[in-house]
Amino acid sequence: MKKILNDPNETVEDMLEGLVLAYPEKLQRLPETTVVTSKNVPVTGKVGLVSGGGSGHEPAHAGYIGKGMLDAAVVGEVFTSPTPDQVLEAIKAVDSGKGVFLVIKNYTGDVMNFEMAAELAEAEGIKVEKVIVNDDVAVEDSSFTTGRRGIAGTVFVHKIAGAKADEGAELSEVKRVAEKVVANVRSMGMALTPCTVPAAGKPSFQLDENEMEIGIGVHGEPGIERKKIGKAAEIASELTEKIVRDREFSGEVAVMINGLGATPEMELYILNKNVQKILSEKGIHIYRTYVGEYMTSMEMAGCSLTLLQLDEELKSLLDAAADTIAFHP
Amino acid sequence: MKKILNDPNETVEDMLEGLVLAYPEKLQRLPETTVVTSKNVPVTGKVGLVSGGGSGHEPAHAGYIGKGMLDAAVVGEVFTSPTPDQVLEAIKAVDSGKGVFLVIKNYTGDVMNFEMAAELAEAEGIKVEKVIVNDDVAVEDSSFTTGRRGIAGTVFVHKIAGAKADEGAELSEVKRVAEKVVANVRSMGMALTPCTVPAAGKPSFQLDENEMEIGIGVHGEPGIERKKIGKAAEIASELTEKIVRDREFSGEVAVMINGLGATPEMELYILNKNVQKILSEKGIHIYRTYVGEYMTSMEMAGCSLTLLQLDEELKSLLDAAADTIAFHP
Repeated sequence: MKKILNDPNETVEDMLEGLVLAYPEKLQRLPETTVVTSKNVPVTGKVGLVSGGGSGHEPAHAGYIGKGMLDAAVVGEVFTSPTPDQVLEAIKAVDSGKGVFLVIKNYTGDVMNFEMAAELAEAEGIKVEKVIVNDDVAVEDSSFTTGRRGIAGTVFVHKIAGAKADEGAELSEVKRVAEKVVANVRSMGMALTPCTVPAAGKPSFQLDENEMEIGIGVHGEPGIERKKIGKAAEIASELTEKIVRDREFSGEVAVMINGLGATPEMELYILNKNVQKILSEKGIHIYRTYVGEYMTSMEMAGCSLTLLQLDEELKSLLDAAADTIAFHP
Repeated sequence: MKKILNDPNETVEDMLEGLVLAYPEKLQRLPETTVVTSKNVPVTGKVGLVSGGGSGHEPAHAGYIGKGMLDAAVVGEVFTSPTPDQVLEAIKAVDSGKGVFLVIKNYTGDVMNFEMAAELAEAEGIKVEKVIVNDDVAVEDSSFTTGRRGIAGTVFVHKIAGAKADEGAELSEVKRVAEKVVANVRSMGMALTPCTVPAAGKPSFQLDENEMEIGIGVHGEPGIERKKIGKAAEIASELTEKIVRDREFSGEVAVMINGLGATPEMELYILNKNVQKILSEKGIHIYRTYVGEYMTSMEMAGCSLTLLQLDEELKSLLDAAADTIAFHP
């Protein structure tokens, strides 16, 4: 295992310390928790936004904390859901009396633990609503999931629900735009290499030297097909066609080309060229493109493509100001 | 070779097309060149700032184009200096009559080609000044270099010289602050894995499964020592101690923890924890921390540490507004 670590069992603790030390003017950690929040929680008159999940997907989710996006991120062990008590601490910290909205990726553990925390919070008199993100069109049901998985499209939910909350909208309105994003966003990924959970010490699966896996999940869950590595143009075509067969896209879209961890930015731009060519041929207009690492799988080489169908409301919320470490409108 | 590519010999061309397609509101390519500029060059009343070098180091350098940083980046083939004619095109495009400032990393090819372009531009009546960045304390002279190499510290030169130019400063003043950064910045890197130049198709060197290289260059040039992989605390100590032995740091510094391409953000934050502990024990105050991929070597796993000694002027220029893809004050 070639990693920059101290004790592999203290990976998340070490990471959280290093993260908060890096951005002391923006982030804080709730004492004796794995919850990271912005410095000024709760924000009076604003719905609180909480997301989170297992770690190993950085910059998700703490990188999206800040004005116009999340108020808190709950950090689990690597590829492991955070526990309900941690989620509850986050909810309590960000509630200003206007309620708290949870953005949950569709993994069985996350859904169960975030919902349990919501019930506990409601028992304490806090209004809680949620959305479950299931943007990955690759497979129905998987190692960690019933239904479709939530992947990089989640970042668009953070951005748009966060912008709505920042306007002072009510909890029901934040929920409405979050559900609108979920209805309009689709993603699909592929991998060239596996990744290694530090405490396990070896890769969770293997891919041959000339092999790629289409439709893989962000924890290495199986995808649709293993095959010989294709050219960027073929990879772009496989990802794009699967997405547009799942949902009709037209008019204006946002495109996210997301690196899974080890993929050079150079390769993401090459993929972007091919994706944009395909979308252009289909008469789909690209309103915004985001290229970079938004939702990773540690050092996995590979990428995902996300398309978000836009309307005037979503465009305006997507472009609204935000001040976070990892997302820049 | 596991890469997302089309023709390996068209890597840079494909990347440039994908880059400009991603950010059409910010970037443009000069026709029939490998020069990328901001959309509004030349800016009246402002010194033009040009940098560049071989590709494979993304987001360097095109990611630093924008208000408050670079006006243009000249893009060479992978790990290969751009030619003087390309640099000349960049200089001509960004000159508003107030002169052009070149930020050059200290590699023999870059220095020669940028200097030749400067002479050609001066022959056309354009005032040109330059700075050569040599922040890497690891080795004197190397495969590509006479003297010390220029690595991630170059990004601080872009930021600070760019902020000064943005104030409307004269060419001599831009040069003064750029030289001040070079005098005050030091870096040191390490690698866990090699990387592969697409046209070569195989890694340029090998590291054993339990081996790391301290002091490696961003093209895989040899460092100081190959040894058994140490814990993050030991790596932090090796990098930090070498830097602070080279130059005395005190008062306030900026810290950059730079990933070389394949290193998960998680590991960079862990390293940051250990670096900050060491600096704190030495009584060095950290004014700003930047953690992420700023100057990469494609899919190399590893990192570099950069320290910049600050004073009031440098702090103010470092924090000045900038609008680029890859650097966010």
